[in-house]
Amino acid sequence: MKNPRVVIVGAGFGGLFAARALAGKPVEVILIDKHNYHTFSPLLYQVATCALDPSEIARPVRAIFSAHTNIQAFLGEVQGIDPQEKTVTVDTEGTAHQFAYDYLILAAGSHSAYFGNDDFKQHSFELKTLEDAIDLRNHALRLFERAVWVDDPQERERMLTFVVVGGGPTGLETAGALYELYNHVLDQEYKHDSLRARVVLVEMLPHLLAPYPEKLRQKAQEQLESLGVEVILENPVAKVRPGEVELADGTILLTDTLVWSVGVEGSPLGNMLGVSPARGNRIPVDRQLRVIGLEKVYCIGDMSYLEDPEGQPYPQMIPIAQQQAKLAAENILVDAAGKPLGNFRYHDRGVMATIGRSRAVAWLYQRVQISGFLAWLAWLLLHLLSLIGFRNRLNVFVSWVWNYFTYDRSVRLILEKSDPER
Amino acid sequence: MKNPRVVIVGAGFGGLFAARALAGKPVEVILIDKHNYHTFSPLLYQVATCALDPSEIARPVRAIFSAHTNIQAFLGEVQGIDPQEKTVTVDTEGTAHQFAYDYLILAAGSHSAYFGNDDFKQHSFELKTLEDAIDLRNHALRLFERAVWVDDPQERERMLTFVVVGGGPTGLETAGALYELYNHVLDQEYKHDSLRARVVLVEMLPHLLAPYPEKLRQKAQEQLESLGVEVILENPVAKVRPGEVELADGTILLTDTLVWSVGVEGSPLGNMLGVSPARGNRIPVDRQLRVIGLEKVYCIGDMSYLEDPEGQPYPQMIPIAQQQAKLAAENILVDAAGKPLGNFRYHDRGVMATIGRSRAVAWLYQRVQISGFLAWLAWLLLHLLSLIGFRNRLNVFVSWVWNYFTYDRSVRLILEKSDPER
Repeated sequence: MKNPRVVIVGAGFGGLFAARALAGKPVEVILIDKHNYHTFSPLLYQVATCALDPSEIARPVRAIFSAHTNIQAFLGEVQGIDPQEKTVTVDTEGTAHQFAYDYLILAAGSHSAYFGNDDFKQHSFELKTLEDAIDLRNHALRLFERAVWVDDPQERERMLTFVVVGGGPTGLETAGALYELYNHVLDQEYKHDSLRARVVLVEMLPHLLAPYPEKLRQKAQEQLESLGVEVILENPVAKVRPGEVELADGTILLTDTLVWSVGVEGSPLGNMLGVSPARGNRIPVDRQLRVIGLEKVYCIGDMSYLEDPEGQPYPQMIPIAQQQAKLAAENILVDAAGKPLGNFRYHDRGVMATIGRSRAVAWLYQRVQISGFLAWLAWLLLHLLSLIGFRNRLNVFVSWVWNYFTYDRSVRLILEKSDPER
Repeated sequence: MKNPRVVIVGAGFGGLFAARALAGKPVEVILIDKHNYHTFSPLLYQVATCALDPSEIARPVRAIFSAHTNIQAFLGEVQGIDPQEKTVTVDTEGTAHQFAYDYLILAAGSHSAYFGNDDFKQHSFELKTLEDAIDLRNHALRLFERAVWVDDPQERERMLTFVVVGGGPTGLETAGALYELYNHVLDQEYKHDSLRARVVLVEMLPHLLAPYPEKLRQKAQEQLESLGVEVILENPVAKVRPGEVELADGTILLTDTLVWSVGVEGSPLGNMLGVSPARGNRIPVDRQLRVIGLEKVYCIGDMSYLEDPEGQPYPQMIPIAQQQAKLAAENILVDAAGKPLGNFRYHDRGVMATIGRSRAVAWLYQRVQISGFLAWLAWLLLHLLSLIGFRNRLNVFVSWVWNYFTYDRSVRLILEKSDPER
């Protein structure tokens, strides 16, 4: 009998870990992603701020699975899903082809959420892909070069003010790294021009890091402000126009750079399934992680919707995607063997956020609270160990040690495709 | 009395070494380049073939000179040069500004030469900038992904055949690296599809590496062929059409990838001077490296034309640009001090070309000929030591050791700007 075929859509943390859990098992795995690499997304902000190279946080999907003969990786964008016929249609560089599946795992992740405000989307940067990170890097470096030639103080302020919206871990990390990068670079290398960057973090709630205990929220804000970042709380963005951001209380921030990290919504791929999405365009799944109302279709990670035993939806976080990936893979194997499926239960090992050099907060096992240098070291270590690929770990380690001791941010290349038509 | 101002156009090897030679000297230096980084161009082919990261062979110009207060670096494209008024007009991100100079050093390098054949230019890749290298990398990786879906053998051959035109060092290095990369990657990671790449090197002369002694030319060809590259001699490219290359004898090579490394011509910036260019659009200079017919204007490197004592034009090579840079800087200093200028004399330490893993040829001091592993080691060492910036040396060293022992080419990211409009 032929092994059942599992098609996995998405090579983010969910899809990658599902494929890993199926490596060497009696299934044939087809792994599809629109990039030819897996991105270690927690470090995208370090690419955007010139501390790391794109290839240091990415690894070709084919390379990850080159030793596993039961896994085939393909580059392509999913054009359609037919849960009745059990097929997925994929477009690769203009050629369409169809995969039949016995089991489908949807793990296409999430997009930035703009809550229907086209102006937010149109005039802001996000940090969801490597391309996003390089866009932001190019943009900021260009602004510095332009600012040198600008005498009008208002115009200069606009160029050198960076507004980050969203007080979650990504917002904090990005704001801290932007501040460190820009002011170091500007101090050292634009010294004839006395440029100075301003970084403002805007959050609509009365505090940063909503899911953290009060003490750590305070610590995070103190560390961010001691670095030099301005924090504005309880004041959501009302309107975004080219060159300026208007907050709810009427405050105008002059800026050419708005970084949007407010929240995410499930990938539009979910809408191909013909099921009604839950809040945030997420696909409702049962506790076995199967899409409710469909056969043999699993959905995991940011694009799936499941409530925890207290009735709260599981947050869209990497550890949840990873743990769901493992269960979905196991459930497919036991289902194929005719045995009963297991239920999802999240093992919360903790959360952490870094703010800048020697600054971080961590909340471990919902009990231990640490902040400052120790939390920062823990953050570094955890991220190093979680990187995919030994070479990436080695390179990132070398880069971090280098950056720490030299304050250097050497990946400051304004680098763009020369001929977008080719 | 104010120090004289030296404007240097171009931060390639010529401009960079001229600025270095003027660091800390009683002159004010303005260094202008259209990129914000210096590119270590001899290793561009390694970026194109996924062995190195762009940032490993590039360093921000401002970073290189951050310790030198008499040097200011600017990003910008030169729009005009007025040798009478002694001004240079530069455009930075849409803003034009003018620099007055006391001395001008033109070091804007060269472009690929297509000898008036628009079809060669339109349908080929070149390797002059980091953007070029990334274009070629993206293109080749995309072809592999597309080839997986193609059944027609002719169509597949077209996708997997890479033609390199030009039997100079760059052509050899590129052909060898392409062959190693492609067949390693294809073997390891497309094993379900049994893809195999073909690399063809085309040269119009009856031998490779024209300036080398006969024995080394032979060695180079043997090493290239033993690797697996096909070499076609005495057969220039006649016509290039989308998807195929026609050679002079009528041979048709089906290919979607033509890499052009036949020769170069001086930067069009030279044409702003109002002097008649020599062969290859190069600007004639006297033995003191001053542009003939102009005052206080020096021209060095690939874009300058000077004959050696035997009446042969100096070739367009990095060591010549570097040595000319030093003399131009010295001549400006002695001229400012009212002393007599020195004449250019090239100290030829030798030439070398690498062909692939453990394969290279070197011709040192026009006497010593070595080839194979020893020449390859010498090539590695020389290029490591010549890299600009300690961090780059460290990173490249780690990458090379890694690549050597693992046969890995991990920088295989198809990475493009997401929104060319922004």
